[in-house]
Amino acid sequence: MQSTRYEIGLEQLAKIDGEAGEKVIESLQDICPDLAQYTIEYPFGDIYARPGLDLQSREIATVAALTALGHCQPQLKVHLNAALNVGCSETQIKEVILQMSVYAGFPAALNGMFAFQDVLQERSEIG
Amino acid sequence: MQSTRYEIGLEQLAKIDGEAGEKVIESLQDICPDLAQYTIEYPFGDIYARPGLDLQSREIATVAALTALGHCQPQLKVHLNAALNVGCSETQIKEVILQMSVYAGFPAALNGMFAFQDVLQERSEIG
Amino acid sequence: MQSTRYEIGLEQLAKIDGEAGEKVIESLQDICPDLAQYTIEYPFGDIYARPGLDLQSREIATVAALTALGHCQPQLKVHLNAALNVGCSETQIKEVILQMSVYAGFPAALNGMFAFQDVLQERSEIG
Amino acid sequence: MQSTRYEIGLEQLAKIDGEAGEKVIESLQDICPDLAQYTIEYPFGDIYARPGLDLQSREIATVAALTALGHCQPQLKVHLNAALNVGCSETQIKEVILQMSVYAGFPAALNGMFAFQDVLQERSEIG
Amino acid sequence: MQSTRYEIGLEQLAKIDGEAGEKVIESLQDICPDLAQYTIEYPFGDIYARPGLDLQSREIATVAALTALGHCQPQLKVHLNAALNVGCSETQIKEVILQMSVYAGFPAALNGMFAFQDVLQERSEIG
Amino acid sequence: MQSTRYEIGLEQLAKIDGEAGEKVIESLQDICPDLAQYTIEYPFGDIYARPGLDLQSREIATVAALTALGHCQPQLKVHLNAALNVGCSETQIKEVILQMSVYAGFPAALNGMFAFQDVLQERSEIG
Repeated sequence: MQSTRYEIGLEQLAKIDGEAGEKVIESLQDICPDLAQYTIEYPFGDIYARPGLDLQSREIATVAALTALGHCQPQLKVHLNAALNVGCSETQIKEVILQMSVYAGFPAALNGMFAFQDVLQERSEIG
Repeated sequence: MQSTRYEIGLEQLAKIDGEAGEKVIESLQDICPDLAQYTIEYPFGDIYARPGLDLQSREIATVAALTALGHCQPQLKVHLNAALNVGCSETQIKEVILQMSVYAGFPAALNGMFAFQDVLQERSEIG
Repeated sequence: MQSTRYEIGLEQLAKIDGEAGEKVIESLQDICPDLAQYTIEYPFGDIYARPGLDLQSREIATVAALTALGHCQPQLKVHLNAALNVGCSETQIKEVILQMSVYAGFPAALNGMFAFQDVLQERSEIG
Repeated sequence: MQSTRYEIGLEQLAKIDGEAGEKVIESLQDICPDLAQYTIEYPFGDIYARPGLDLQSREIATVAALTALGHCQPQLKVHLNAALNVGCSETQIKEVILQMSVYAGFPAALNGMFAFQDVLQERSEIG
Repeated sequence: MQSTRYEIGLEQLAKIDGEAGEKVIESLQDICPDLAQYTIEYPFGDIYARPGLDLQSREIATVAALTALGHCQPQLKVHLNAALNVGCSETQIKEVILQMSVYAGFPAALNGMFAFQDVLQERSEIG
Repeated sequence: MQSTRYEIGLEQLAKIDGEAGEKVIESLQDICPDLAQYTIEYPFGDIYARPGLDLQSREIATVAALTALGHCQPQLKVHLNAALNVGCSETQIKEVILQMSVYAGFPAALNGMFAFQDVLQERSEIG
């Protein structure tokens, strides 16, 4: 039985990540549907749905963290798309990535920027 | 000879970090004044001074990254202060820290929140 | 309104972490009670309460991860206590920490072992 | 001259990692055979051969740590295979990975789960 | 307008990284030329150009750090090339990577060694 | 029975870390003497004793890695002492730490520099 948190999470996920989010969820159906459910419920149903911080700021925080951590490139790409989806400008996103050179070093910033280049190219090919 | 980048950086640092920033710079004078100079020039003179992202969003990005990385508690505290200084609300900052539970785990979020509690207490004692 | 997940989580937390867990939750009441609630609901209400892996194995996994990550010493101590609480032997816990020298290097293993020494001493003083 | 530690390590490696372990060792023969020797001697000859923790628990600890660290996907795959080889069930391994969402965030858990999906598929194709 | 730091940086970059460095800079021209400029100015114009540490020791430090961090494989490869370019021997570089097994664990050292194997093979194919 | 590796390791440890190394080993005697033995045998008996890289370069590599990783401050201090013990100059060590701002960000470099300041002060008080 699916909770209301699940429904709220699905709605948030659709708004933020569009098809990219759906694909992640689908890709978990065979191996571990419970992880898909938790991913919808906790990050999207509980956290992103909270008032107190707009979605653009939430995506700025997520892009910053994933660029700095450096070992989650697939999730970084999902959230670079998400940042654009919720209305962050290309310039704002580049500034966040650039700023990570200060806190996590130049390699992390470079790899974040190359990921963003991939994302922009994929979107222009689809679009 | 100090560059214009240095002067711009000092100005940004004063605006953002107030006394906390000055203390970091002073504390480097004996051991490595060049690191103080670079810290003023590159992060503050080059990066924070750029247009394209407002200071509140820059601090949201920095608080997110330092909470997620987890091993830079003194710098996280400086930037929790900085976030308040440039106009982020307590609620916004708490939301950023809370959100890091999704990307870096609950321990990182908990330690970030405890750092924020310390910062708020220090400010109320001074204030 | 608190969910059933919250009640299950509280029960798990009491079983696993005893007073240490309660103290963490209490310490969040002023700064961010919602993080306390999420910490009870998701890690303890959702994850630790799942069948499929016994609590001793869960604590072995957590001690391993927190020792390897190296930047969450307070949470590592909570779970070193928890591992003892759910029936892991001192020897088993030492072996897990020792093994982390292979995957995260000797400094992480050394700091994990010193944390365990602190935990054992605190328990002997209380006990 | 090879030590007894080397012989014990080779035996442990065969028991735990099967062919995957042998391939890692072979792949080092040209570039740095000494690293192959140390990998056999210290992790397998010294650590995994110790009494005090059964091999299933050792693999649970290793899978947890490598999932949490997030930057060692090839070694994670070797140990997901190893965990199955020494008798951990698919369910137990999934639970360990799932639990890492709590300590290292959802991206680390997602990438660990996708690695496990690859491992299961490779084994079914060979098997 | 480009600073003298930029010119010094370009010179250092050519000396250290040869074509590999140029390619990184070129690859940023479309997405974020400012990051290319900062990468030339701060790391190469400010830091590598400093007296007080010879270039061989600088590359030993960089190879050590990038091997230990484990999530910057493209930059590690650039600096494995750079280390050879400035006169470090293959043996010295292998020793640095090997030593990282102590501080960051065996997986980080293994992945560093495999990166070095790729670099040596690429150089022998070109050379 | 202690191996020759143990004896070589003890000798290396005395040469490199002096009393600081001995204290680490002593501090493990109660909680886990086997970890003390492994720490002497593998890092010092196997790795530091190898030809192919001089001790000054080895300490440069270690200081770089521990500064970059950022979560091993006690071990970083031991090796800042060690670097001085084997003949690295204060300037060389500062350059290594400074350079880490490029690869691991400014907070890691700042915390490394403050650790070095502590080490220099402790040595001047003893000396």
